[in-house]
Amino acid sequence: MTLQAFFTPRGVAVIGSTAEGKIGYELIRQLREGGFDCAYAVNPKAQGAFGARGFTTVSAIDAPVDLAVIASPASTVIDVLEDCARAGVRAVVIITAGFAEIGNRAGEEAIKRTARQHGLRVIGPNCAGILNTRHRLFASLETRPPAGDVAFISQSGALGGAVLSWAEEQGVGFSKFVSYGNRVDVDEIDLLPYLAEDPETKVGALYIESVVDGRAFMRAVQTFTRVKPLIVIKSGRSAAGQRATLSHTGSLAGADAVYDAALRECGAIRVDGVEEMFDLCKGFVSLPPVKGRRVVIVTNSGGPGVLAADRAEALGLQLPEPEGAVREALKQRLPPNCALKNPIDLTVEGTEAGYRETLTTLLADYDAARNYDAARNYDAARNYDAARNYDAALAIDVSTPYLDSVALARGVAAAAQATGKPVAANFMAGRIVADGIAYLSAHGVPNFVTGERALTVLARMAEWGEAQIRLQAAGSEKPAIEIETRSLPTGPLLEPTAMAWLKENGVSVPEFRFVTAETEVAAACRSIGYPVVMKVVSPDIIHKSDVGGVQLNIRDDDAARAAFAALQQAARGKDFRGVIIYPQLSGGQEVLIGLSRDPQFGPVVALGLGGIYTEVWRDVALRLAPIDHAGALAMMREIRSYPLLAGARGRPAADLDALAELLVAVSRLPLIYPEIAEVDLNPVMVFARAPRARRGAVAVDVRIIRKEPA
Amino acid sequence: MTLQAFFTPRGVAVIGSTAEGKIGYELIRQLREGGFDCAYAVNPKAQGAFGARGFTTVSAIDAPVDLAVIASPASTVIDVLEDCARAGVRAVVIITAGFAEIGNRAGEEAIKRTARQHGLRVIGPNCAGILNTRHRLFASLETRPPAGDVAFISQSGALGGAVLSWAEEQGVGFSKFVSYGNRVDVDEIDLLPYLAEDPETKVGALYIESVVDGRAFMRAVQTFTRVKPLIVIKSGRSAAGQRATLSHTGSLAGADAVYDAALRECGAIRVDGVEEMFDLCKGFVSLPPVKGRRVVIVTNSGGPGVLAADRAEALGLQLPEPEGAVREALKQRLPPNCALKNPIDLTVEGTEAGYRETLTTLLADYDAARNYDAARNYDAARNYDAARNYDAALAIDVSTPYLDSVALARGVAAAAQATGKPVAANFMAGRIVADGIAYLSAHGVPNFVTGERALTVLARMAEWGEAQIRLQAAGSEKPAIEIETRSLPTGPLLEPTAMAWLKENGVSVPEFRFVTAETEVAAACRSIGYPVVMKVVSPDIIHKSDVGGVQLNIRDDDAARAAFAALQQAARGKDFRGVIIYPQLSGGQEVLIGLSRDPQFGPVVALGLGGIYTEVWRDVALRLAPIDHAGALAMMREIRSYPLLAGARGRPAADLDALAELLVAVSRLPLIYPEIAEVDLNPVMVFARAPRARRGAVAVDVRIIRKEPA
Repeated sequence: MTLQAFFTPRGVAVIGSTAEGKIGYELIRQLREGGFDCAYAVNPKAQGAFGARGFTTVSAIDAPVDLAVIASPASTVIDVLEDCARAGVRAVVIITAGFAEIGNRAGEEAIKRTARQHGLRVIGPNCAGILNTRHRLFASLETRPPAGDVAFISQSGALGGAVLSWAEEQGVGFSKFVSYGNRVDVDEIDLLPYLAEDPETKVGALYIESVVDGRAFMRAVQTFTRVKPLIVIKSGRSAAGQRATLSHTGSLAGADAVYDAALRECGAIRVDGVEEMFDLCKGFVSLPPVKGRRVVIVTNSGGPGVLAADRAEALGLQLPEPEGAVREALKQRLPPNCALKNPIDLTVEGTEAGYRETLTTLLADYDAARNYDAARNYDAARNYDAARNYDAALAIDVSTPYLDSVALARGVAAAAQATGKPVAANFMAGRIVADGIAYLSAHGVPNFVTGERALTVLARMAEWGEAQIRLQAAGSEKPAIEIETRSLPTGPLLEPTAMAWLKENGVSVPEFRFVTAETEVAAACRSIGYPVVMKVVSPDIIHKSDVGGVQLNIRDDDAARAAFAALQQAARGKDFRGVIIYPQLSGGQEVLIGLSRDPQFGPVVALGLGGIYTEVWRDVALRLAPIDHAGALAMMREIRSYPLLAGARGRPAADLDALAELLVAVSRLPLIYPEIAEVDLNPVMVFARAPRARRGAVAVDVRIIRKEPA
Repeated sequence: MTLQAFFTPRGVAVIGSTAEGKIGYELIRQLREGGFDCAYAVNPKAQGAFGARGFTTVSAIDAPVDLAVIASPASTVIDVLEDCARAGVRAVVIITAGFAEIGNRAGEEAIKRTARQHGLRVIGPNCAGILNTRHRLFASLETRPPAGDVAFISQSGALGGAVLSWAEEQGVGFSKFVSYGNRVDVDEIDLLPYLAEDPETKVGALYIESVVDGRAFMRAVQTFTRVKPLIVIKSGRSAAGQRATLSHTGSLAGADAVYDAALRECGAIRVDGVEEMFDLCKGFVSLPPVKGRRVVIVTNSGGPGVLAADRAEALGLQLPEPEGAVREALKQRLPPNCALKNPIDLTVEGTEAGYRETLTTLLADYDAARNYDAARNYDAARNYDAARNYDAALAIDVSTPYLDSVALARGVAAAAQATGKPVAANFMAGRIVADGIAYLSAHGVPNFVTGERALTVLARMAEWGEAQIRLQAAGSEKPAIEIETRSLPTGPLLEPTAMAWLKENGVSVPEFRFVTAETEVAAACRSIGYPVVMKVVSPDIIHKSDVGGVQLNIRDDDAARAAFAALQQAARGKDFRGVIIYPQLSGGQEVLIGLSRDPQFGPVVALGLGGIYTEVWRDVALRLAPIDHAGALAMMREIRSYPLLAGARGRPAADLDALAELLVAVSRLPLIYPEIAEVDLNPVMVFARAPRARRGAVAVDVRIIRKEPA
């Protein structure tokens, strides 16, 4: 059932007292002052307000009503829902609090049941309401924001309200707003696909503290991000924040790193706070796509130009100096004392014409083929020939009381219009540039409080462009895995069983032999080829090294038999099942691969270099399982220790394709084997990519943990 | 000579045309509109303006003039200076441009010469002027900011102007402002000590792009920071930024990491941009000292509370939950459904009394001893017993159009006043909280745009408190090193010479023998004790390992002689001088220590773990040399790999004191030996701290580079 009735209702019933100061009274006021004519008040006294007529029930209203907004006491809500159903209402917003957030889960279940029974869609309870500015529908107590192109969904009513009351000052307008409160029914999983198709929404913004079904959330996000940018604040990033979320929403937020990986995978743009959210909304609404990372800064003051340039590197932007044809063209147009660097400093002499000509020259699209190439391969685009043109510009004006900032704004806006390229502005500061900023805004050039913040927006927009390419290439959505589930081998997963199981499932392991008697050990070692490693096999021994259960560098038959005896001795008094023998491997790079299950998102695969890299540096890449070959390679590039794999310090490059194959195979295990809780492959040895003898990547130790029986 | 004449002149002469729109005209306007009565115009026509009388020369003015502000053409400046000198002027601000910034170095030299000859102090040329709000002195074309407690020095006139015009909106007032332009005379090195003693200045802010004499800069900064906080923006952090600075100021900015180390060492608070600078100014001006990192957040809305909490961890703040007596006291005062976590969520029901009582209870100073302890030992303070009280609070109010934000502001301000503790506020958002924010501001509670920014301020203020303890402990300033300089050994610094030299200078090295003949080798090895390492000694061989010039694990006399022969063979055709023999060392943690000279700051010592840690992770700590024992230990704690030294992953802790002694000795080398350009000790082996046999830390390889002859 569509959500249209929420946003474009023919009539709206407000249920609740219209006594002055009551929520019903204020809701009617908001609706009427916002310009919505077909609002009706429903309360025992049939008392109207602000020109809206009053009725005792929704059914009594003598006009079509599609939406009901309930502000009456919690105890009345079920009766009101029944009344709504009788009246043919299809959508209900329950502002009323006093449900799960104070422990009244039964009340919430009753709402859910009644709604389902009558086919009503419900937003709330305990929510701040909804807005549709284009329909003049302000069914909320919050500040009425300016109309615009951003749809905002907030899990927190208060934060939603703060954003709305800040909007005008921030220069951001909203198409729709939804606070869904306790989400008995409608939440972002319904709203995102709806808003993806909403012609009045260009950009989405989402504040969440937790999700219920991680995979459904990801599908909803992707449905949106395939067509529009989505900016997400996910709070509870830190331990303190997670504790706070738990106490605040009563729901466990889940591991933040998993949210991070999930959001990135879906192409959502995660930001830390409300200021960056506003900045990005403004950028996405006003600017054409940012198709690469080559940015030029044009300023009339050195200092702020340098401060902005300082940020570029950390943001992954490039500030190449103008070269070739661009440089020649600039030379002809600018005064001779103007240094052709980046930032380009027009100095305090910079004029309207100076900004216009400089920006137009730098951004002119005389090499149209470039953008096409860049769109296909963003790695190539990052290293593009410096003689080409720029992807975006930042225009800085540090005004004095004696400069005409409107004239400079005209120059900047004219260049943006002439080239069709993204131009962000930073006109500083305070009242003396207010008119200039207003001019920019009226002509589609967004202004940011600092150059650093403007560049942050350009960088995130470039990132979004790259994610779009990846998302489009990946097709419609994460491919459904058509795998028959299987059971793990029964009994304890001793090393020989576990290794055989890995191999069976396409995860490379070294050749190995399982030997139970001393008489067989020499032959087994010889069949593998000396030198070998021998480890004890016993269900009673977990940490083999700690009890002398690992023998390294065994070089001949005598040593092999001695090692067997030593391992037997190490297991004395324990259940000794035999020994496992591997070739002695060396020269590989050790990595760690882990599988776990997130309560919200399900199976997650992790890659790190293990040891110090993981424990001290927390240098780990996460992905929702399963992954494909490209995803596995992307994971590797994501860890900071990647140079160790790719061949730093004169080492040969590791066989990354072999590691990717292994990662892909591992990532499928939790889908095939629902019993798996965790798997650790630590270490996996990755060998150098060699022209002839391919040694690849092999898991040399494994630990498998089953789910606790339910 | 004091700078007082710049800031409290009896009279001011403005030299330059007073035709409408000219700089002289606008300067007079600023001075008169700002309320300064004794301004005089000097120009060939003796034309006054805005009630200021006009004269043809400064000497002709019939009233005392201490300050001259020159805006006449560059070609007239020397004559004007002569005139000023004759008139008894002591201080001159030269606004006029057209000197070094366009290559006219001769003109600048002439200014310098003339000023020195007549004992004039000069600010400028090519500067934006100076302000002293309390003296109503606005000798600048920039926006007149509100009066306040912040003194601001800016190397960039334009950035300075932007800050001034932004000040009112940001709620920050200024005591003094100086733009020193091309700094022929006065710059931050003169201004900081002056402002340190200025009773009208509580907080300093400094924007720099480069310094001339790094050590003098450090002394000036420390003179200031010993009494007042100093917030510094140093631009040119990135490669792009440095390039831009070079093109903008014509001066090489120097390695940013060295500036960073120098500023930290001096207790200055480095920020990235203007927004954080304003935030910190506001915090330092309004708040009492933040004496520890235990912060409590009190909010009336979950979402923004969680977003702020998320930032705390990254900022190094702690958000412990209320315990013990505080918890009991809160329980009695708050409604039963209010969770006693951190953030404490008063919910939308939070009242004036709720904020007041909650904050007062949390901050009440019932354990006065704690603050005393914390001041003496900030490491202990970080781990303070959770039952104690809090060091600071953040009060968040997410308002709706129906909440009385002024009432909540009253509650917050009352608690701040009652407890005398630092309370920062984040009242959100837009116009609906404007009155609340105004109330807070009037009562000394600073409001920040987001909770995250408020916490950033509290964290930086806590850091400042810690730095103060360190600075006070370190005494007046970096102790002058009374060392007689010496010369390096002559000739090539072969390994035996270099090792002996290190030892002589107190840098521990392993025992070693230098042997030139095969007949002596066995005895030498035995005197060290097998196993040993042997390396070739030849001025022609730099990378010994590459030519087989290192023999490891030599275990007996035969092997020793064979190794000698092999090394002799490795050096065939080269200048073979013999071999150097060391004990075979193992089990230590390798670190890298480097010395270099920064063009601005002089000798710098670096510590890292070498190899991958340094090259991939760039995990290096820098300090200006020389350092003391405490500084050496602080350097170790600064590198992220510190757990490897301190004993991570079950390893024993390394002998950090031994490493510190070695670092201290190394850091003195460039002061004793002016010839040194660079020294690399790579690796230094640091052994475990053992109860009996102390193996300490030893430099096992060394490379010394001499300065190029001038």
